[in-house]
Amino acid sequence: MDKFNLIIIGGGPAGYNAAERAAHEGMKVLVAEEKALGGVCLNEGCIPTKTLLYSAKVFDSAKHASDYGVSVSGASIDHDFVITRKNKVVTALVTGIKMSMKKAGVTVVNATARITGKTSDGFTVKVGETEYTGEKLLICSGSEAVVPPISGLREAYETGFVVTNREILDMRAVPEHLVVIGGGVIGLEMASYFNSIGARVTVVEMLPKIAGSADDEISKILQKNYEKRGVKFMLSAKVIAVGDRYVQIEADGSNEKVMCDRVLVSVGRRARTNGIGLESVGVLTERGEIVTDETCKTSVAGIWAAGDVNGKSMLAHTAYREGETAVNNMLGKKDRVDYRAIPSVIYTNPEVASVGETLESANASGIEAAAESFTLKYSGRYIAENAKGDGIVKIVIGKKHRNILGVHMIGSYASEIIYGAAAMVANEERVEDVRKIVFPHPTVGEVIREAMFMM
Amino acid sequence: MDKFNLIIIGGGPAGYNAAERAAHEGMKVLVAEEKALGGVCLNEGCIPTKTLLYSAKVFDSAKHASDYGVSVSGASIDHDFVITRKNKVVTALVTGIKMSMKKAGVTVVNATARITGKTSDGFTVKVGETEYTGEKLLICSGSEAVVPPISGLREAYETGFVVTNREILDMRAVPEHLVVIGGGVIGLEMASYFNSIGARVTVVEMLPKIAGSADDEISKILQKNYEKRGVKFMLSAKVIAVGDRYVQIEADGSNEKVMCDRVLVSVGRRARTNGIGLESVGVLTERGEIVTDETCKTSVAGIWAAGDVNGKSMLAHTAYREGETAVNNMLGKKDRVDYRAIPSVIYTNPEVASVGETLESANASGIEAAAESFTLKYSGRYIAENAKGDGIVKIVIGKKHRNILGVHMIGSYASEIIYGAAAMVANEERVEDVRKIVFPHPTVGEVIREAMFMM
Repeated sequence: MDKFNLIIIGGGPAGYNAAERAAHEGMKVLVAEEKALGGVCLNEGCIPTKTLLYSAKVFDSAKHASDYGVSVSGASIDHDFVITRKNKVVTALVTGIKMSMKKAGVTVVNATARITGKTSDGFTVKVGETEYTGEKLLICSGSEAVVPPISGLREAYETGFVVTNREILDMRAVPEHLVVIGGGVIGLEMASYFNSIGARVTVVEMLPKIAGSADDEISKILQKNYEKRGVKFMLSAKVIAVGDRYVQIEADGSNEKVMCDRVLVSVGRRARTNGIGLESVGVLTERGEIVTDETCKTSVAGIWAAGDVNGKSMLAHTAYREGETAVNNMLGKKDRVDYRAIPSVIYTNPEVASVGETLESANASGIEAAAESFTLKYSGRYIAENAKGDGIVKIVIGKKHRNILGVHMIGSYASEIIYGAAAMVANEERVEDVRKIVFPHPTVGEVIREAMFMM
Repeated sequence: MDKFNLIIIGGGPAGYNAAERAAHEGMKVLVAEEKALGGVCLNEGCIPTKTLLYSAKVFDSAKHASDYGVSVSGASIDHDFVITRKNKVVTALVTGIKMSMKKAGVTVVNATARITGKTSDGFTVKVGETEYTGEKLLICSGSEAVVPPISGLREAYETGFVVTNREILDMRAVPEHLVVIGGGVIGLEMASYFNSIGARVTVVEMLPKIAGSADDEISKILQKNYEKRGVKFMLSAKVIAVGDRYVQIEADGSNEKVMCDRVLVSVGRRARTNGIGLESVGVLTERGEIVTDETCKTSVAGIWAAGDVNGKSMLAHTAYREGETAVNNMLGKKDRVDYRAIPSVIYTNPEVASVGETLESANASGIEAAAESFTLKYSGRYIAENAKGDGIVKIVIGKKHRNILGVHMIGSYASEIIYGAAAMVANEERVEDVRKIVFPHPTVGEVIREAMFMM
């Protein structure tokens, strides 16, 4: 029976990345993955959506080229080509991870894993038909899309009328009218893509705002941008039934039947903790999520968990960091995840990016905070590149120490700018510290610096 | 006679920004500007070029749209429209600065300024026909393009066959063949624009590489990208004469007459220190540049200088920071410019961005350093958005403390990513510190983080 220093259950961002780091530190590592390496992120999440959205961006840019002196006659997009290209990008990246695993000396077993118990040698895990022993375990079993208990939804999912983030990425036909249930990150990104390529799109959201925990002002700007492009938003609205080519929606006390030819359900994701044998070793879960602390330890000594399965953040980059933190702690190196400084991005056009507290969340946590928002038109580059831009950056600071608690942006390049703000939050930099950092001119990012002189 | 706490000579980035900061701190401030507020940067530098380059980017994107599934028939660019739009952008921004000055209570005098002496009240400055007294002076007189002593060049500049960064931005006709003398930032950005819009472009550079002090590997990648697009580079080459529709070039011992219909001379910039009365108060200059220290003090107590006039960095963002540093020191707040951490960007396509030491410069300064370069193909987003990309990021660290000494990039978003690296250099962060910062996934920027695990 093969023995490993570390067995990792799940080869998504938490798992494959931790495997590489651990192997680099000299551990003998096994990764068990039942589907494709890269997990949801690479196969049916971050990467495929960004491939689609970039094609949409190129198409949008061609459609609005005349604003910048460029004439284009007859722009069109080939959705089928876009899906084929997406598959190529995903295949290339999955192959890349396979090669990294091989190079790092990580054993990858392509089968379902189940923890079976504990011996004096370590934990026993059955992967496919073979039993392995690992001195330590890292559980990275990820998450799956929630299909809520709406009348007719499960049946419609089975016929293919309703799709999740997974199936929509392989849909070769463009729907005439797409209804998106859930106006969070996944729902908005897909609404954005299908709006760009010419579908009619209706977004139905239970909350009175889109984009979940995003700053309220930014959420409104994003909504306005998409309304201008023809996306219809139904807020504080609830889907009560799904039937043949329609969804039944309750909003403002009234009841509306909306005809459509495809429905995307994107109301959230749920940790995958069933069927992996947690009960055989007694790993504590709460509401179906593995309980972990900031070092990613579970309730059982020797077992760590990272990624969506802990239900904390459900973002690939959090998963990376959690996997690394777990490995460091396994090796006796003190490390902890700083959950205050995790950025998040919505890859709409304009992009939304955020890190740290909003004024609302700071107040709710009892932190005395101040917030101000600034137009991106302070940036010459933003004006040069956005003929009709309405982007902003909002800065949240602690009143006592004037430290950066949060940065929230909507506008071009927000996705690539926000990491620097994550560092400011993590390092507890003060307004006066950021003033001394030189941002290149002309960039959109320098509005963050300029804002520091107005706080 | 009007008295001010501070008189600023020059309303470019150093001057207008310092004026706003100083007024914000309660100082009574006068800014003397002989042309338009915003200086070279806003009127004939950073902003106009970025407006042109964004139009070129939109055009390039339309031309290569088919790589991403977008069909475009007949894309064309209207150079005249681009120039008109550029003028509108510049006018809007100049107006914005005027309004900021007014709002901050800064007195702006639109005339030439000359220091005339010192009284017990302060320094006397004649602006146009009026004499003002300033307790303190900040000299921000900027720089001008060097027109080198090449046979026939001065005459050809006067006929308009030769242009500098200023005139080229108002040129309404597209040259058939543009020769660019000097392959630095300005030369390359203009070569990039005119290549994109269909002109034949030849870049003549005296050094054996383009892009001045850029990392050698990055310089080569940039050159290769532009060679593929048809730009011709003549390196280690010297223009020895300019005549009627030609330039005479010496390279490899041979002598070539290159026919062309326009020449851009962009061989460098020189501080403007003549004619502003420095001698009347004894401000020390060296090679025509005002000598300043890290607090931006000149040799005369009470007189500071900021921006291109000190010849140190000749970048708008350095000018901002120097102006602010001067104001802080005037007010008794200790502050110094950290010249190790000034980013620089070339807005070509792909973009080049850089901060801190290269391996060569570190070695030359006697610092024990190590450098490694990493393909941007580690980024899923980069692959999704760059069908044929060859971008890299190069990290330079100190061997002793493993601190980040320099970051050098070529590839998409480099301009917006580099500020975070500037903060790493300024804050003397170590490789291990950067590993703990969470970068959002999928972004191009996260290659910087990934690189930290391979150093």
